[in-house]
Amino acid sequence: MADIQFSTMAKSLYRSEIRELLKLTRQPDTISFGGGLPDPAIFPYQAVEEASLKVIRERGRLALQYSPTEGEPFLKKQLIDYMERQGENVTATNMVVVASSQQGLDLLAKIFIDPGDPIIVEKPTYIGAIQAFRAFRADFHGVELDFDGIVPEELEKTVIRLLEAGRKPKFVYLIPDFQNPSGITLSYERRVRVLEIASQYDLIIIEDTPYRELRFQGESLPSLFSMDKEERVIMMKTFSKIFSPGFRIGWIMGPGSVIDKLVMAKQGTDLCTSAYISFLAAFLLEARQVDRQVVLSRGLYKVKRSVMLAALERFMPSDESISWSKPEGGMFLWLKLPDYIDTLELLKEAVEKNVAFVIGKGFFTDGSGGNTIRLNYSFPTEKQIVEGIERIAQLVSKRLRVPVMQ
Amino acid sequence: MADIQFSTMAKSLYRSEIRELLKLTRQPDTISFGGGLPDPAIFPYQAVEEASLKVIRERGRLALQYSPTEGEPFLKKQLIDYMERQGENVTATNMVVVASSQQGLDLLAKIFIDPGDPIIVEKPTYIGAIQAFRAFRADFHGVELDFDGIVPEELEKTVIRLLEAGRKPKFVYLIPDFQNPSGITLSYERRVRVLEIASQYDLIIIEDTPYRELRFQGESLPSLFSMDKEERVIMMKTFSKIFSPGFRIGWIMGPGSVIDKLVMAKQGTDLCTSAYISFLAAFLLEARQVDRQVVLSRGLYKVKRSVMLAALERFMPSDESISWSKPEGGMFLWLKLPDYIDTLELLKEAVEKNVAFVIGKGFFTDGSGGNTIRLNYSFPTEKQIVEGIERIAQLVSKRLRVPVMQ
Repeated sequence: MADIQFSTMAKSLYRSEIRELLKLTRQPDTISFGGGLPDPAIFPYQAVEEASLKVIRERGRLALQYSPTEGEPFLKKQLIDYMERQGENVTATNMVVVASSQQGLDLLAKIFIDPGDPIIVEKPTYIGAIQAFRAFRADFHGVELDFDGIVPEELEKTVIRLLEAGRKPKFVYLIPDFQNPSGITLSYERRVRVLEIASQYDLIIIEDTPYRELRFQGESLPSLFSMDKEERVIMMKTFSKIFSPGFRIGWIMGPGSVIDKLVMAKQGTDLCTSAYISFLAAFLLEARQVDRQVVLSRGLYKVKRSVMLAALERFMPSDESISWSKPEGGMFLWLKLPDYIDTLELLKEAVEKNVAFVIGKGFFTDGSGGNTIRLNYSFPTEKQIVEGIERIAQLVSKRLRVPVMQ
Repeated sequence: MADIQFSTMAKSLYRSEIRELLKLTRQPDTISFGGGLPDPAIFPYQAVEEASLKVIRERGRLALQYSPTEGEPFLKKQLIDYMERQGENVTATNMVVVASSQQGLDLLAKIFIDPGDPIIVEKPTYIGAIQAFRAFRADFHGVELDFDGIVPEELEKTVIRLLEAGRKPKFVYLIPDFQNPSGITLSYERRVRVLEIASQYDLIIIEDTPYRELRFQGESLPSLFSMDKEERVIMMKTFSKIFSPGFRIGWIMGPGSVIDKLVMAKQGTDLCTSAYISFLAAFLLEARQVDRQVVLSRGLYKVKRSVMLAALERFMPSDESISWSKPEGGMFLWLKLPDYIDTLELLKEAVEKNVAFVIGKGFFTDGSGGNTIRLNYSFPTEKQIVEGIERIAQLVSKRLRVPVMQ
């Protein structure tokens, strides 16, 4: 066998928990709180079937051919209309279609990050973003989250510290709505403040919003993208959470100069997104099936979230160092356990009891978060949620140190 | 607007001729010899429609969900069977499904290339490979092609020169069958010799074979992958040329350690390939529609190639510095014009006359090839081939310098 010399990037690559857990979720006897998977019970199978017939019958010649790198025009038109229904104002030159949000992150890393470049992320933040940015050897600077999102004072301190060291951060990566992994939403006041800080220090913000439409409680807050008057916000969207992850369709909106570079980077990365899937997605958008699916998902996830919260209340031992977020939308709930509980050890036991979740540590860039867990409530059934939480709670109880009375 | 600081990679990005020409090919009044597009007249629309119904009805729940990063198992099984019918012996651990060959090139660049790393390519070579490898700042070393493919003596000289400078090439990238852009096939004797050189100097070979099945004349030669006894060949395949570029499905086969790194790199790049498209492709493979499409394409492209050769014979001015390749398969023919003819200037005139082709220069990494053209014969109709070649020949004739009689 040949002596293979891999690149520095390859040497830093590791298998992610997400990937290993995607495998687990395919085993029918496992209760999975792992991946961020939509509930297959409400997938609009009939609508997809009908749209697929239209793809071949009405656009067959284009659908089986290469498509333009920036995105199939018919899909872009439907996406622009969809964004308009979401209150966002976008034009075709400010949008590129990508083959999933994850590809968007890879392309953004490509066009922004040189090895060692500082970037700012939430702490915790999306594990896939860490993977994409780490591959290009970004220097991560995590900023604390509380239940109202990223703490502006901490953000400003981090920016000042970096600027004083002559190291302007390439961008601030935020997930303001029902954040992955924490389920936390950035408050309106903080949105205003974050944009002020961005303006003051001339920062680029990447606003990743896969769950934004999935609000089932409280009032919707304007996106940073819509509030931005200075062309410094790049917004990322995906089909995966609002319709189907099986399509691999995402889109990025932002300043023309950034979109232009993303398109050029995409050329060498995969030449173009599937024309077939682009037309399929476009017909489903045109028929408002995506909008319908969002309404359906909201209703279902609200119930499931409430079932999970009730199960946590019921089964989790009372201990002041155990807490969890109360998401108003999205797919995830964040569970904090006492510092001395290593959730990786807990996961190993849980898997033996046929329950899976994602350990929180992978969402931190500084090795912390060893006592945290991300719980997904969109995929499991209500019955599974109750059973699964009960099993996890039992494992936690066993590890809980009884406080010594004084 | 924000002051945007792009990465070094982004600064080196440029818009490719391929991309600009993909746009032209969508205008119905232009005769395009540009892209490497299959003939839409023979796309198996009915078969795709039937398969799409099976995807939803038989695999709906999985098709609309995330799939494993290494590839949907049902698709991998069908691909392994297909490769077996092509005489290739592959197992699931030696294969990763990718979202197009272009993604394969990006992933290979990621796992092999650090800035400045030397790699060896044919001269000319595929423009998309140049883009993918250049993005990671590879140091290209081009080796001359003649009508029997890469010249082994030149390859060995290049390897020795690099090794003597202490710079082992990361890999040798070859397109042995009906090469893009030249249409040239590597002879059997040279295949043997190339593998001997690889063995002697411990080199990795990337064998890109998008056109391999499309042989319509002469006898098929064994792939380097099948001849390799030392696990040093990585083989790349794609749906784009044998079935449909609209799917964005490719697959890479090679040593387990390489496949493993590719899977990890793919995680951060797009998480997984579309499950929907994976099942669609798998059902079409299972029904032998891909095999049928290959037979159909061969017959059609043979006729079109012959029409193009006849048109060149008929219309091109007789001049000893004008020559072209006689491909035995694939989609491309390579035209060399006198040194003093700049094909970029020729293209500008041609586009005015509603004919498009790809200038050869982009396929060279050293700025040469300014007098060359790649002509695609799979996409245009026979009538368009005759008309288009006549128009190009007229433009060439106008630029030809009449030799001064002595």
